[in-house]
Amino acid sequence: MLNPIYIDNLIKQALLEDINYIDVATDYLIPKEQCGSAIFMAKADGIVCGVDAAMRVFELIGGKFEYRILKSDGEAVAYGDTIAEVSGSVRTLLKGERTALNLIQHMSGIATAANRAVKLVEGTGATIADTRKTLPGLRPLQKYAVTVGGAKNHRYNLSDAAMLKDNHIDAGGGILNAVSSLKKRLGHMTKIEIEVRNLDELKEALEAGVDVIMLDNMDNETMKKAVEMTNGAALLEASGGITEETIRGVAQTGVDIISIGALTHSVKAFDISMKIRA
Amino acid sequence: MLNPIYIDNLIKQALLEDINYIDVATDYLIPKEQCGSAIFMAKADGIVCGVDAAMRVFELIGGKFEYRILKSDGEAVAYGDTIAEVSGSVRTLLKGERTALNLIQHMSGIATAANRAVKLVEGTGATIADTRKTLPGLRPLQKYAVTVGGAKNHRYNLSDAAMLKDNHIDAGGGILNAVSSLKKRLGHMTKIEIEVRNLDELKEALEAGVDVIMLDNMDNETMKKAVEMTNGAALLEASGGITEETIRGVAQTGVDIISIGALTHSVKAFDISMKIRA
Amino acid sequence: MLNPIYIDNLIKQALLEDINYIDVATDYLIPKEQCGSAIFMAKADGIVCGVDAAMRVFELIGGKFEYRILKSDGEAVAYGDTIAEVSGSVRTLLKGERTALNLIQHMSGIATAANRAVKLVEGTGATIADTRKTLPGLRPLQKYAVTVGGAKNHRYNLSDAAMLKDNHIDAGGGILNAVSSLKKRLGHMTKIEIEVRNLDELKEALEAGVDVIMLDNMDNETMKKAVEMTNGAALLEASGGITEETIRGVAQTGVDIISIGALTHSVKAFDISMKIRA
Amino acid sequence: MLNPIYIDNLIKQALLEDINYIDVATDYLIPKEQCGSAIFMAKADGIVCGVDAAMRVFELIGGKFEYRILKSDGEAVAYGDTIAEVSGSVRTLLKGERTALNLIQHMSGIATAANRAVKLVEGTGATIADTRKTLPGLRPLQKYAVTVGGAKNHRYNLSDAAMLKDNHIDAGGGILNAVSSLKKRLGHMTKIEIEVRNLDELKEALEAGVDVIMLDNMDNETMKKAVEMTNGAALLEASGGITEETIRGVAQTGVDIISIGALTHSVKAFDISMKIRA
Amino acid sequence: MLNPIYIDNLIKQALLEDINYIDVATDYLIPKEQCGSAIFMAKADGIVCGVDAAMRVFELIGGKFEYRILKSDGEAVAYGDTIAEVSGSVRTLLKGERTALNLIQHMSGIATAANRAVKLVEGTGATIADTRKTLPGLRPLQKYAVTVGGAKNHRYNLSDAAMLKDNHIDAGGGILNAVSSLKKRLGHMTKIEIEVRNLDELKEALEAGVDVIMLDNMDNETMKKAVEMTNGAALLEASGGITEETIRGVAQTGVDIISIGALTHSVKAFDISMKIRA
Amino acid sequence: MLNPIYIDNLIKQALLEDINYIDVATDYLIPKEQCGSAIFMAKADGIVCGVDAAMRVFELIGGKFEYRILKSDGEAVAYGDTIAEVSGSVRTLLKGERTALNLIQHMSGIATAANRAVKLVEGTGATIADTRKTLPGLRPLQKYAVTVGGAKNHRYNLSDAAMLKDNHIDAGGGILNAVSSLKKRLGHMTKIEIEVRNLDELKEALEAGVDVIMLDNMDNETMKKAVEMTNGAALLEASGGITEETIRGVAQTGVDIISIGALTHSVKAFDISMKIRA
Repeated sequence: MLNPIYIDNLIKQALLEDINYIDVATDYLIPKEQCGSAIFMAKADGIVCGVDAAMRVFELIGGKFEYRILKSDGEAVAYGDTIAEVSGSVRTLLKGERTALNLIQHMSGIATAANRAVKLVEGTGATIADTRKTLPGLRPLQKYAVTVGGAKNHRYNLSDAAMLKDNHIDAGGGILNAVSSLKKRLGHMTKIEIEVRNLDELKEALEAGVDVIMLDNMDNETMKKAVEMTNGAALLEASGGITEETIRGVAQTGVDIISIGALTHSVKAFDISMKIRA
Repeated sequence: MLNPIYIDNLIKQALLEDINYIDVATDYLIPKEQCGSAIFMAKADGIVCGVDAAMRVFELIGGKFEYRILKSDGEAVAYGDTIAEVSGSVRTLLKGERTALNLIQHMSGIATAANRAVKLVEGTGATIADTRKTLPGLRPLQKYAVTVGGAKNHRYNLSDAAMLKDNHIDAGGGILNAVSSLKKRLGHMTKIEIEVRNLDELKEALEAGVDVIMLDNMDNETMKKAVEMTNGAALLEASGGITEETIRGVAQTGVDIISIGALTHSVKAFDISMKIRA
Repeated sequence: MLNPIYIDNLIKQALLEDINYIDVATDYLIPKEQCGSAIFMAKADGIVCGVDAAMRVFELIGGKFEYRILKSDGEAVAYGDTIAEVSGSVRTLLKGERTALNLIQHMSGIATAANRAVKLVEGTGATIADTRKTLPGLRPLQKYAVTVGGAKNHRYNLSDAAMLKDNHIDAGGGILNAVSSLKKRLGHMTKIEIEVRNLDELKEALEAGVDVIMLDNMDNETMKKAVEMTNGAALLEASGGITEETIRGVAQTGVDIISIGALTHSVKAFDISMKIRA
Repeated sequence: MLNPIYIDNLIKQALLEDINYIDVATDYLIPKEQCGSAIFMAKADGIVCGVDAAMRVFELIGGKFEYRILKSDGEAVAYGDTIAEVSGSVRTLLKGERTALNLIQHMSGIATAANRAVKLVEGTGATIADTRKTLPGLRPLQKYAVTVGGAKNHRYNLSDAAMLKDNHIDAGGGILNAVSSLKKRLGHMTKIEIEVRNLDELKEALEAGVDVIMLDNMDNETMKKAVEMTNGAALLEASGGITEETIRGVAQTGVDIISIGALTHSVKAFDISMKIRA
Repeated sequence: MLNPIYIDNLIKQALLEDINYIDVATDYLIPKEQCGSAIFMAKADGIVCGVDAAMRVFELIGGKFEYRILKSDGEAVAYGDTIAEVSGSVRTLLKGERTALNLIQHMSGIATAANRAVKLVEGTGATIADTRKTLPGLRPLQKYAVTVGGAKNHRYNLSDAAMLKDNHIDAGGGILNAVSSLKKRLGHMTKIEIEVRNLDELKEALEAGVDVIMLDNMDNETMKKAVEMTNGAALLEASGGITEETIRGVAQTGVDIISIGALTHSVKAFDISMKIRA
Repeated sequence: MLNPIYIDNLIKQALLEDINYIDVATDYLIPKEQCGSAIFMAKADGIVCGVDAAMRVFELIGGKFEYRILKSDGEAVAYGDTIAEVSGSVRTLLKGERTALNLIQHMSGIATAANRAVKLVEGTGATIADTRKTLPGLRPLQKYAVTVGGAKNHRYNLSDAAMLKDNHIDAGGGILNAVSSLKKRLGHMTKIEIEVRNLDELKEALEAGVDVIMLDNMDNETMKKAVEMTNGAALLEASGGITEETIRGVAQTGVDIISIGALTHSVKAFDISMKIRA
């Protein structure tokens, strides 16, 4: 469950952005006491996410508001399915509509894409992971939606795991030295991943002893060899330009993890409508 | 130029999210005084946006940092073009890399898509506009990127223009009454738009006298008739599910504005790389 | 209705300022469980505004609290009228007293002054508008209070409407060129206003085709001529040093809008008392 | 000198409010590299305040900016006096103009009014003080401006001094008991003031031994008797509806302090213009 | 009672720090609907503080939650005493556990140490006070805990009382001149304290007439002489390196206040456990 | 290096707390242009930490300021050593003194205690780690100081590693089932630690296959057996009431990590003075 302090802060920021000081159409035309109802309806097939967040939008605006959730975060929905029924002050419904839809459509878009990727590798041993390619201020929400879609989270930030790239390795005096220096300082709960570009570097990384090795933009043949060489001594992560077309082939090389930046950096909103009946 | 107070706040939020308290790989392996350089390079063709914002990321991290911008916001870039050259503390470059790329790729993605839409309607009288379908906390940045791509901004929020939907019209006692009530309260700098679903409603809207009329999910034939009926008495905005395939047809109906939610709710990141040489 | 997220933030800021960590007199002398009641009473004649905000102060402090509003935002009150009755924890009442009064007196002061201006031009075609001459952090609250008094809001900020002054016109190559350049970039929901200092400039502005023309510090005779020349082709706004003494004369020139900075930059608090009975 | 962290936060809030994401007139018409200059000129006689704050506005917007201050906080100015000369990017000047003027006009308005009150009691032993009747978020700025005008600050908030009103006294079991209870808990740096409504209460307050006694809405005759009775055993503060007309009479009763809510709750902006030459 | 706005803000900050976006152990393993209970138990003898704050942690996380407080802020507890019983969603209990304990242990640690100091001087006329040696962001909470332990607060910040050190005195032209200059500007609710290093400076300070005199790092003999010299003309504060071993001797010199930085800068957490039964 | 965005935010919060709107002693007595210098001197032996942070305090206050650091974060200092020399505006020095000292003393206190613990286990294989027992808002700073002292960080928050306690295990259906369920959802960069209370639970944990096992409050004999049983199959962490007296004995049992809450929850400020010479 997404941290309630975070999501409240985010919704408040969105409502300040969207309402500013007054809703001229709604506050000037809709009577304060008018009540109505609405349903959130799926306009496509996928995995819904952000339902609680959408409901929270209306609660934070205030005024009369009740709701019933029919499809919770993580459930599959088909075109036409009712996700939630809401009722209350029409002013509240109209003021929250856009913000609620923006949240639930973005989060459901991520969950749906993540789930599609998970299904594409089903039966292979590979799992799908996200990256740090997220939008400013939205990382918690985006990482959460990835898990709701059934995929997994990569490291959250630069503090909670070490990923060594060529700059780190060069500064550290080669893979062996860099890993060894790092281990002297890293806490015992922090994993080390290292990025390698070829099988020579892989060999060195295996000698250095790391938790995860990222195979950066390798072709499937090379990755198969990497899997053989590694033989379970570290987790292998495939990364770099993997698409829905190529993903199953990558998974079949035997890598453990496939990380996909597009899950969070190129989100297609999942279509959900909210129709208000006053 | 994007408000510097806003973009600084956003970058700080992103850096808190991404660095947390320390960059374990960088702070433990890269010497404080090591310097290096990097280039931001386009990996696709499009319109670049967010270059100043990306440079600002490194300035806010602190440490030695210099840059030269070769392609400014709004310029066209092709695969392989250098957008900016940066140099300074390698720690600074590594810590800012992800946040800078997340910003510039998202903003350039929006600008590029907006520009493509603008080009698709070139020669017709139609202009392209965004919507309020933005991501929480990112509206300023997204609306700005839309203009950098050559498209235009629709209203910013619920305070600065009135958009009447069926709920407002019903509560207001029909189109004529609703518009008339509203005009008694709205300031003189605030425009009124009304959403109509058929030509009867259009007729009423024209009688009421509004600035803009949104033709909600109409087919092109109906829109052509709408254009004739309106005859310049109001601006006409086409909206609802318009894609790159259908947009020119819509533009050719003679509508004034085509608004596209996908410009901001379904952004595809524009590929830009940052290669650091220590 | 003022955006609840905004007003909550503002009240919290005021309570942090006013209480700091503890109320030494109240927390050290008033028993936690003591209850009492109070009334908010008008000590002058005018339009009340900020009643909901004042009640919200006590809710945010917490503890037992109930209230009944007898005069809502926008209602006329006379000396001695009870605006609201509140009851609950005496600690809550004492801690919120000053912050609640500071809010309601400022907002009622604005609403009352705005209403007086509206009445002074009654029967002429002119409407009264505010300006951007507001206090830092208080613009939403002040703009709202202006509408509660029956006057109207001018543009909210530099993004939602374009106001061209001489610097813009000079840089744009004269009125015609500047307006034409601007129209190429402004969205369809954004109005253009231009400031003119004499009838020659007015003529040019009319040719350029703008929504509103501000007559800057003109005498009434000149404004009458401006009204004739314009003949409805644009809205005319009178601005600059207009007082309660001169306002009706200005309105009678036939201008459409009279904007008054003093509504928000020189507010006289409206006297309201809160008498607590423990 | 006003706390720089506070004033920076306040200016940033004001700029977010006023610019939002872009200044449509300025960013679309004024070339980025265009430079110009401006002067801040007094349009009335008074005490200037907020000059540093006004200059800081432009620094926080960024871009080229230089300034020279001719009249610093606390200096007397006459109509036509130049307060500051500024130069730099015309975009910066135009975007900061309104926010800078809003600050300096409000602060100078307070300083000027405070100074007028100080002069009205000159030669009597009375000093002028402000109150907690300030606007939300502006207390630091308003209290500072009061001192710049030569008057003094009353307590800042409910934590830093104890003011006993009838509710506190009743709950505390009468003046003697309440003061005695309070002294057991208050720190040694915290003063006690007590509000009295007649000479009997004054007598009791004097017996209780407090630092300051507020004479609440007493007529001048009664205050004279209060001064005699007190004979220097405590400071006496006159409060309640004191105007520029009545203030000298009050001061001549011999009270030590006259506190005036209007200094901060009913501020008249001091007229200052900023004329930009591009 | 600690300002609810402050403590809510602080708890939210702590929960963002501690939960980040999700509690992987709890959210992945504990069913949403599972309920349980827990008790907060003292594992040492002392004064409890922060009980309300600890309960508030769970309320802000949300979900089912009820509690009963058995020992309120300021009550003495012995090893094994139950402080509060809580029940509700196990997810809520687990997510709040660490933050609640961190708060209550720190605050009880301060209250217990303050109380111990108070008891050590019992029967002498001395009172115990804190200092400004607090942790960033925690001053309100720490100052409150000091009072809960029975000690008193020194000034809160640099605005609400003047403490003159040698730099101020030198710049002001000696003690007499500095105090006299300062009195011309300070408000009537603001006390003056002056730091003296020997009896000559004390003599001068007494002539200058100040509220409090701090005897900086003096030995007990000198302080006894200072008490005689002062003879009640000002309050005397002993300060500098006073420990639990030396405090009673200091108190017996006759000084009025003993201020101890360690109360807030070197806090030993008071051991309290929370045992959850699902 | 501590995230500069975080530390700036924290320092600003501390300066708002400590200065409020004005420093009455300094702003009223010290001339704006007066310059001086000061040194930060160690008054004890230990490891210094927070030097950059202390310098940053003065930079954020503004005014003339220069500094030279003689002892950087992590260096050993002895009583009397100069840590840094600063010079500039005396106003700046006086306003920042308390905040700078509060930071550097707290951080150096943590680093010194962490270093002492590290030295006490030198030569054994054990490493010292901190916990989540930190103060609200200070976790980044406290965790950083722990590493500066040579100890290591445990997990940062509830998102970045899973620690299973009895509640998680019970809800998950025993150790084996709980760990297995969890692995299906956790990302590949996230470690699992499990808390065990006896050797039976240890056995089960080893079968389940986890990264780290916490031996909760076990005696040294039991821990030795645990080390034998585990034989390198997982890291073992000793936790619970370990003091400077008992720590070496614990280390000699062969455990890998010893975690100590007191490093951050019971910090003794490290004595550092700042003597200003005007």
